[in-house]
Amino acid sequence: MIVGIVGGGQLARMTVLAAGRLGVQVRVLATPKDESARAVWPHVEDGDPDDARVLERFSRECDVLTFDHESVDPEIVEALTVLGRAVRPGAASLRMCDKAAQRAALATLGFPVPAFTVARTVAEIEEFARANGGWPVYAKAPRGGYDGKGVRLVDGSEQAMVALALARGGGPLLVEEALPVDRELSVLLARRPGGEMVVYPVTETFQRDGVCRATAAPAAIDTSLALDAVELARSIATHIDHVGLLAVELFVVDGRIIVNELAARPHNSGHWTIDGAVTSQFENHLRAVLDLPLGDTSPRAAAVAMVNVLGPADGRDPADGLARALAVEGAHVHLYGKRPRPGRKLGHVTVLASDVATALHRASRAVDALDHRVADEDGACVA
Amino acid sequence: MIVGIVGGGQLARMTVLAAGRLGVQVRVLATPKDESARAVWPHVEDGDPDDARVLERFSRECDVLTFDHESVDPEIVEALTVLGRAVRPGAASLRMCDKAAQRAALATLGFPVPAFTVARTVAEIEEFARANGGWPVYAKAPRGGYDGKGVRLVDGSEQAMVALALARGGGPLLVEEALPVDRELSVLLARRPGGEMVVYPVTETFQRDGVCRATAAPAAIDTSLALDAVELARSIATHIDHVGLLAVELFVVDGRIIVNELAARPHNSGHWTIDGAVTSQFENHLRAVLDLPLGDTSPRAAAVAMVNVLGPADGRDPADGLARALAVEGAHVHLYGKRPRPGRKLGHVTVLASDVATALHRASRAVDALDHRVADEDGACVA
Repeated sequence: MIVGIVGGGQLARMTVLAAGRLGVQVRVLATPKDESARAVWPHVEDGDPDDARVLERFSRECDVLTFDHESVDPEIVEALTVLGRAVRPGAASLRMCDKAAQRAALATLGFPVPAFTVARTVAEIEEFARANGGWPVYAKAPRGGYDGKGVRLVDGSEQAMVALALARGGGPLLVEEALPVDRELSVLLARRPGGEMVVYPVTETFQRDGVCRATAAPAAIDTSLALDAVELARSIATHIDHVGLLAVELFVVDGRIIVNELAARPHNSGHWTIDGAVTSQFENHLRAVLDLPLGDTSPRAAAVAMVNVLGPADGRDPADGLARALAVEGAHVHLYGKRPRPGRKLGHVTVLASDVATALHRASRAVDALDHRVADEDGACVA
Repeated sequence: MIVGIVGGGQLARMTVLAAGRLGVQVRVLATPKDESARAVWPHVEDGDPDDARVLERFSRECDVLTFDHESVDPEIVEALTVLGRAVRPGAASLRMCDKAAQRAALATLGFPVPAFTVARTVAEIEEFARANGGWPVYAKAPRGGYDGKGVRLVDGSEQAMVALALARGGGPLLVEEALPVDRELSVLLARRPGGEMVVYPVTETFQRDGVCRATAAPAAIDTSLALDAVELARSIATHIDHVGLLAVELFVVDGRIIVNELAARPHNSGHWTIDGAVTSQFENHLRAVLDLPLGDTSPRAAAVAMVNVLGPADGRDPADGLARALAVEGAHVHLYGKRPRPGRKLGHVTVLASDVATALHRASRAVDALDHRVADEDGACVA
């Protein structure tokens, strides 16, 4: 059995490293700028995944196709499925990568989502704000946004005009209420074609400027809230008949859970599972798309923290700080082999400990070392 | 910093997979028959490591040279060191791959070793047997032996003659007493150039026909015996100024520890550390040869068992049994991407549990599934 991964970024990289351990054969379809997977994997083909013919040819070489990103056209995926190719997750899950379509689908299915609309004019945005507690509201590009890109906090008509003017292709925007979010959570699960599912402990995510900076697992929340979150994620996965890893990002608002977004692939909020869970999200993604029995998702410690390594502002390479980072107690350092650019996700550090505060503190210290900052200059990475 | 690994077998494979996570650059020098590393790593060069010019050219491309096997000529390594190349471990450690030289060196340094001699004639072997409690004795090829190859139990003059006749190049044999061994242990440690050292919990190894079939860690031995074993291994590493991973294989005879053999590289008895220790032997080997701070060697569970996957007698591929193996609770399956041949090491399974018996039982069941045996047909893989 050969798994084909469309896309060659860090998610593909971590997936092929898991495949190498299991002895599973993987081919990667990557663009020349995808440097992360090809630095560690010999079976990488150059090709544009947006080209239907390229994808069709690639799918013929593989027994099952999967993805390291969500920007593949679901129409192409549907066509491949009609041709009898196994594509996991399937078109229904990939359609969810359009944030507007995702939100509408989740609302239709009765899942709790923020109030939202799809707007093409300033008047529509003004009308939405008026009907939903006033400014500010969030305006999001339905497609292609990640790490906060394509997301704007809009605080009045003038900013609404700017947001529409900057929208890619002048397309519509997903406009939603700016909720008073208490916490952000993520539920990761893996699901096989037959419906077998395993769910990881609920993860708390810490964002800054729309970018996930750190995670802590298991999240320090009430058991009942955790159970609700897991039940919600399981229900969504079943409803969309998802296969593979699914990340369900949630807001906690006034003790209630609201679905923020889905990601139909391994996810940044699950990087901690490489060192911190019995089976990593990457191995379970492979096992799910290959329809193999899924692995134990238990955490390996009472607290597992992950902090992202973002490209330092001065353009220096975090790899140069490796020795200092590895000197931090318990630091599991992962670097993705990407060229450093300010703010770019270049790696992450995971630390297991008996409590979240210790784990986050140590992971942050190791990341500071990779950032060439002195450890106590900005220890409060996730404050 | 670029690490060059000489040899492309499963040890190189597991080392590059560790390098991929750390973001460390590695090149591998492999012969065409080395299929294991090249299946998972893009930076593999073909070349004969016994050719001094090939090795010299390869060493120029790398910042530090290391090995996945011990059959490299120490003279070449010494010459490279004279040229200023960093070779870790160095020539002194690699000289230890000659079992006769190793035994003599360890005896000279005062470490407990079996009674031994180096024999070229039947008379010498008879004389040794007479002086050391009679037949049988072990006769070992000093070089190139592994997994029991090149080792014969000699039970009389006739068999001594056969052993000498079959000795490669008619060379001398290392002849040693056949000890009444109670247990076999392995101590794994990693040592940096400056002398910093980390030691893994003592591992018990289970052999059959000279091949390591399974391991259990931590070994179920008295604390004082474990401390003796660790102290002995540390002392050997310091005496030979070893850099990198060192495996010290020990016999327990009447409660006393005797040094069997050294391996100057990551070792089969340390495969459990990938899933079962905070830092794997492969990552610590890389960290040691790169002179980076070493990682925590603590076990992740009360008991960690590893069972090797050997090529089934019928030539079938263990990979075909992957689904059944992954269904076994807690089974971490590792396959090396090698063509199946009867008796060949093709992978291993690690299981963490709260006791050794459970861990060994589960790992054996998963290996049975890979061997295409029903689980209860030969559950007692390590009996």
